[in-house]
Amino acid sequence: MPSPTATPTALDLAQALIRCPSVTPEDAGALDVVAEALASAGFAVERPVFSQDGHPDTPNLYARIGSEGPCLVFAGHTDVVPVGDEAAWHHAPFDARIADGMLYGRGAADMKGGVACMMAAALAFVARRDGGFSGSIAFLITGDEEGPAVNGTVKLLDWARARGERFTHCLLGEPTNPGRLGEMIKIGRRGSLTGKLTVLGRQGHVAYPHKAENPIPGLLRLTSALIAEPLDGGTAHFDASNLEFTTIDVGNTATNVIPATARATFNIRFNDDWTAETLGAEIRRRLDAAAGNAVRYLLDLQPSNSPAFLTRPDAFVGLVAEAIHAETGLTPVLSTTGGTSDARFIKDACPVIEFGLVGETMHQVDECVAVADIERLTAIYGRVLDAYFP
Amino acid sequence: MPSPTATPTALDLAQALIRCPSVTPEDAGALDVVAEALASAGFAVERPVFSQDGHPDTPNLYARIGSEGPCLVFAGHTDVVPVGDEAAWHHAPFDARIADGMLYGRGAADMKGGVACMMAAALAFVARRDGGFSGSIAFLITGDEEGPAVNGTVKLLDWARARGERFTHCLLGEPTNPGRLGEMIKIGRRGSLTGKLTVLGRQGHVAYPHKAENPIPGLLRLTSALIAEPLDGGTAHFDASNLEFTTIDVGNTATNVIPATARATFNIRFNDDWTAETLGAEIRRRLDAAAGNAVRYLLDLQPSNSPAFLTRPDAFVGLVAEAIHAETGLTPVLSTTGGTSDARFIKDACPVIEFGLVGETMHQVDECVAVADIERLTAIYGRVLDAYFP
Repeated sequence: MPSPTATPTALDLAQALIRCPSVTPEDAGALDVVAEALASAGFAVERPVFSQDGHPDTPNLYARIGSEGPCLVFAGHTDVVPVGDEAAWHHAPFDARIADGMLYGRGAADMKGGVACMMAAALAFVARRDGGFSGSIAFLITGDEEGPAVNGTVKLLDWARARGERFTHCLLGEPTNPGRLGEMIKIGRRGSLTGKLTVLGRQGHVAYPHKAENPIPGLLRLTSALIAEPLDGGTAHFDASNLEFTTIDVGNTATNVIPATARATFNIRFNDDWTAETLGAEIRRRLDAAAGNAVRYLLDLQPSNSPAFLTRPDAFVGLVAEAIHAETGLTPVLSTTGGTSDARFIKDACPVIEFGLVGETMHQVDECVAVADIERLTAIYGRVLDAYFP
Repeated sequence: MPSPTATPTALDLAQALIRCPSVTPEDAGALDVVAEALASAGFAVERPVFSQDGHPDTPNLYARIGSEGPCLVFAGHTDVVPVGDEAAWHHAPFDARIADGMLYGRGAADMKGGVACMMAAALAFVARRDGGFSGSIAFLITGDEEGPAVNGTVKLLDWARARGERFTHCLLGEPTNPGRLGEMIKIGRRGSLTGKLTVLGRQGHVAYPHKAENPIPGLLRLTSALIAEPLDGGTAHFDASNLEFTTIDVGNTATNVIPATARATFNIRFNDDWTAETLGAEIRRRLDAAAGNAVRYLLDLQPSNSPAFLTRPDAFVGLVAEAIHAETGLTPVLSTTGGTSDARFIKDACPVIEFGLVGETMHQVDECVAVADIERLTAIYGRVLDAYFP
């Protein structure tokens, strides 16, 4: 049995990526690392740059090997969040130092480490199969995920669709594990809806309240009504939807003046019981019931590009879970918790699930991942490829 | 029967006062007008100027005729609020123009008109009695009522007490009538108490509410609890006490962040069921009951120099009400409504009630009073003097 051709290790690739200070919207050579590695294995690599008024141009990368279906897509991003207080880092954030078995650097977890594992697994797989397998592997890598996400995955998917690219399943390598590699696959994400509520009153002097109309009691009534009852009890794969008030502001500095208006902002993370539209209708229903004829209010629901979505557990999810179990001994939880990710966009192109490194230190000082986890995640992705293309 | 010596009319005095642009803390000659008129009738006039760090020096006036008791005090102020948009006035605010039977000008109602009526009435009374009556008449006139009230009536009363001055009753000439001369005597004022409430939480990401502690639901709970039940049902001479929230502020601009703290400010106008201390205790009781162990809060009750007070309706109140009825045909309501006035300080020196002109236009553009009301108020004050010193 021939030994597989030598391909770059995930650790090498991760270090090369971390050494590019690609804080959004800078690329700093990061996509060159991806392009060169994938091209060397026979991937056709495209580097579209997307533009939009008011946003910096952003580089993106699309690579594919094979032209037939099924097409398994690895997705990710090479941009990183700022380093914060650089002096507080024990290992310089772009040095990619290894110490005590950990790889340190901005993006080690989120998600240059994950991108490196995908690449190393794909390169090794292609080498193992000597170029021959039935189907395609693609990479969707953006440089605008941590920023406004305007010139990133959304436009990259549009661009690929226009070229006639079709995808069967996607594995997004975000750091999904809270504390231990193998704990958690994300099979969906909650949606996000932001609303701004304004209650109208009439200014006046506190000593003559009958000549004024204080909007604050009305605001208390409406905001209390919004959180008086849970939005739902959760669904099969989702926690209960949750509304958080993020601010209330009146901005009146005079203690003898009744103000004219009072404002509150809320953000809802909602499950697959709702769309932004049905949820908006429920919010208005609650407000109208609480307001009656007594409270005059305005509601501004911000357009939401974060719907709730779920990739139903199926054979693909099972295949990934089995690969994880084989390498880690853990049966991953199928979760829909946490914030949003580019999966909210990819889900319109094909079923997408997320599995990557341990996210414990992401966005923090001294971001790091275990070198052993990089090796094991590469092996997991390799098992996924072997099972996906039997 | 000899005709009384000619003394200045209230209208002359009011016009002379209005022509001094005495916007707090400016005097602009206003107290000279008072001093000259009273001195000419035999009053001993003092002009103490009071000082305090951080506040402009303010002129005040004390005048007295007679040394025996009883001593009836007329109190008032010659400072006025700013004119606001001067271009919006139809008659220049310091011209003291008369048009269609109305005297126009800043302070016409609040309260140079009232001061002029008191003076004219006292001068005419002294002339009628030819200097001989049993008792004393005093004037307490300040130039710091519309401002911080730091170098005004409080210090003037201290100064008078230190000189051994004793007062029997006080009539403060603030514009007490809402729409028609004779409608309303004020026999007390509600107290004022301001509180600042802060609810403490822990900042975090809206997608991970279990890792944060949103202070806004706690603030809603506590603020709602403060207004859930009336503070009282009113008393014999006072309306119910009333709490108004004047502002709520969180100041968080990020819609994906749960804030760390939330703040509300309220002002209570309270009746004689309460002192600032008992009311503060009730506020804390309500907050503690609503907070339980679930809400962490801080309450900052501002020191209050505005207690509720009542001058019990007695012979003096009856004497003033009879004078009003004789001139206007109206039986004045004995009220304790509205904002605060210097009566809150004078009440510690002697029983004080308030009666003056019609306040409808006070603090507004085109402030004005009816010339006929100036004449009738002077006649009312004259009847009070005649009845008080029979």
